[in-house]
Amino acid sequence: MIKEHRAKKSRGSWVESANVEGCDFPIENLPFGKYYLTADVSKAGRIGIAIGDQILDLISLASCIDTPSEFESTFALLVQGDMNTWMATPDSIQMQFRSWITHLLEKENTLHKQLASALLPQASVVMLLPCKVGDYTDFYSGIHHATNVGKMLRPDAPLSPNYHWLPVGYHGRSSSLIPSGLPVIRPRGQTRASDGKPPYFQASRRLDYELELGVLIAKGNQLGTPISITQAEEYFFGMCILNDWSARDMQAWEAAPLGPFLAKSFATSISPWIITKAALAPFRTALQRSDPKQATLPYLDCVNNQASGAIQIYLEVLLQTKEMQTAGLAPYLLTQSEYSGAAYWTIAQLIAHHTSNGCNVMAGDLFGTGTLSGPTPESAGSLLELSQGGKAPISLPSGQTRTFLEDGDTVIMNAFCAHENAVRIGFGQCINTVVASH
Amino acid sequence: MIKEHRAKKSRGSWVESANVEGCDFPIENLPFGKYYLTADVSKAGRIGIAIGDQILDLISLASCIDTPSEFESTFALLVQGDMNTWMATPDSIQMQFRSWITHLLEKENTLHKQLASALLPQASVVMLLPCKVGDYTDFYSGIHHATNVGKMLRPDAPLSPNYHWLPVGYHGRSSSLIPSGLPVIRPRGQTRASDGKPPYFQASRRLDYELELGVLIAKGNQLGTPISITQAEEYFFGMCILNDWSARDMQAWEAAPLGPFLAKSFATSISPWIITKAALAPFRTALQRSDPKQATLPYLDCVNNQASGAIQIYLEVLLQTKEMQTAGLAPYLLTQSEYSGAAYWTIAQLIAHHTSNGCNVMAGDLFGTGTLSGPTPESAGSLLELSQGGKAPISLPSGQTRTFLEDGDTVIMNAFCAHENAVRIGFGQCINTVVASH
Repeated sequence: MIKEHRAKKSRGSWVESANVEGCDFPIENLPFGKYYLTADVSKAGRIGIAIGDQILDLISLASCIDTPSEFESTFALLVQGDMNTWMATPDSIQMQFRSWITHLLEKENTLHKQLASALLPQASVVMLLPCKVGDYTDFYSGIHHATNVGKMLRPDAPLSPNYHWLPVGYHGRSSSLIPSGLPVIRPRGQTRASDGKPPYFQASRRLDYELELGVLIAKGNQLGTPISITQAEEYFFGMCILNDWSARDMQAWEAAPLGPFLAKSFATSISPWIITKAALAPFRTALQRSDPKQATLPYLDCVNNQASGAIQIYLEVLLQTKEMQTAGLAPYLLTQSEYSGAAYWTIAQLIAHHTSNGCNVMAGDLFGTGTLSGPTPESAGSLLELSQGGKAPISLPSGQTRTFLEDGDTVIMNAFCAHENAVRIGFGQCINTVVASH
Repeated sequence: MIKEHRAKKSRGSWVESANVEGCDFPIENLPFGKYYLTADVSKAGRIGIAIGDQILDLISLASCIDTPSEFESTFALLVQGDMNTWMATPDSIQMQFRSWITHLLEKENTLHKQLASALLPQASVVMLLPCKVGDYTDFYSGIHHATNVGKMLRPDAPLSPNYHWLPVGYHGRSSSLIPSGLPVIRPRGQTRASDGKPPYFQASRRLDYELELGVLIAKGNQLGTPISITQAEEYFFGMCILNDWSARDMQAWEAAPLGPFLAKSFATSISPWIITKAALAPFRTALQRSDPKQATLPYLDCVNNQASGAIQIYLEVLLQTKEMQTAGLAPYLLTQSEYSGAAYWTIAQLIAHHTSNGCNVMAGDLFGTGTLSGPTPESAGSLLELSQGGKAPISLPSGQTRTFLEDGDTVIMNAFCAHENAVRIGFGQCINTVVASH
């Protein structure tokens, strides 16, 4: 279990809910999100900043206060709902904007009565995907997960020979990215019972989640021009939680020889608030590997990346079945894990590798980190690992058991950053419920 | 070699170049493309229809003639440059539009002097990607290619057990899609000389093309709602040539266990004119498989698909080196192949399978068919196959040899449809030249 973290006290905001201990969105966080008002039949997307249990709605803010001239045009992008172009604005402008928003929301601000008209309760909106994702790439940088899964298939050599040399990854499907809150419809597909027998087509019986983080790209590079490891952090905008939903029975049958396809493309869900690079800065940490003598090729190596390329982020997965909900039982904690101890490659390394062949990324592109299982069996980030491939059912407080997900099951993923020299910030949640195939 | 095809004579157009025998764009074709005028510094994209060596420019057309009221609003989409929304308009409107354009361009049209002001020479424009591609999926439906490549890796079982049961495919990278005409920059990446030795990072030494066709999707389905095999043709908009550029040395090292990634994502090029479903209709043919007793699962099977799901399209690849160009030598014909005899799965089967898990496609999405090698060694669709994995160099008329592509090499792909009961139509070309890594 993750031990309770002492954290620095927030500087405080006049939005009182932001000052509550353990709140995901204190004034030190200020994540961006996109949503529509539940009352708005046009469902027009608006951009806002989460603070406590409220949202600082930027359309409303624009109408109640003058924008400082130095970022008038870039603020206009946010007001117009254009997150992607905003993400690509220079870091210096983003930092100025962050300072301004911090100033507006801080406890001491005398304009707070006027500014309060720009707040919306988070409960009054429906969250959307935060930006337009052009391409989505899923990496495999969680070394404990790769080892656990590899052992099931190749006990003697769980990791492929390239694993310690490059961030393994594959292109994912971007059309089926969904925000937290939407149902996940159980996919149907081909699977095969045992070798030699013909496959059949049915609803997946081995539906699983994968605990990942999402990385959002700030801006694009020119096709043909790699991003160097020393520049890669400039291309990193922020993070979210990512659930890489997986149909294990379909995956086992379809994946040879070109990798995962329909076993993944039915849904990938993300938490809707983008936690920015600036908010994550206090939680930077050194790259930690269990094999420090392993060589790294120069294009993936630099001093800054070694010193502070990783980020300490605590993760957890909870499960609530329909029966647990009916019985009034709280969600059951399945897993706790931590990002910097789970990921073999840093974000800068993912960016440098992805573009090393000249491939271009674009503002709003999404990378999945890969499943972030911890080093111990109980900290595994998927049911495939927790149930040992379906052989060891997990007991739930309702008396039910699970090897894989059943219809009506709700998967809840949380993430937060905390240590004694910084104010705790959270990612919000990624929550989706499995519903039956049509 | 593909034998000369007798073809029906075109009904003819007042655009004289469209009536030349062997022309790719007679009045029976009418493909859509997007481009900007070389003289236009803003490079604003315009949509037009290829006819002979000209383009019927739809912005100019709108200003010189009244649009019939029944498709005024959909024609406006084309004039505005919104190809994707146009692609999603109902087939019935598209057929009416096609009839109108045919009427405008036919020999007998008395308005041709007025209409001539809407023509642009193809030589006066720079072609762009024809539409916005949200997601790009590359299939592996060329059974001879899959067999040839499989034999190099697994001589006893070249095809994976799933090959005859489902269309194998993987998600591709859409950001690096480029139109014919742009250079392809040789990618750099990791590769390994021999087992056990550490990998190194260098410019690819085994750069290859893959001869494919691209399939463009007409409209989207709801996430969670599969497209049935009987409805799949409604979601098919048209086709183009596709060159799936591949770095074989990088691919061999990176692809385990999740499939191709950077070995492909540096560039995928397509021919810029979309040949519509209507233009391809005369070339429909029965699904031809060498293993007719192989069972097909019901979600991939229907009478129409068996009867006319395939399309007869002739393909060829030519190579021209810099030295050949200097010496005034014509491009050298490397390969001739044919689509319906090469592809194990039809377009309708690709669409039905891709969405069978509930995955949503969108207007403008692109599918690659997979490499369309013919059944004989000399009809192979890649250098990997033609040079037997680099062991059998190919002799060129310049006295040079090739196993894989060198800097300065130009790869030219052609495609056309022809038989004695229809007018020959062509796809135009997909031409790209390899340039050195930066």
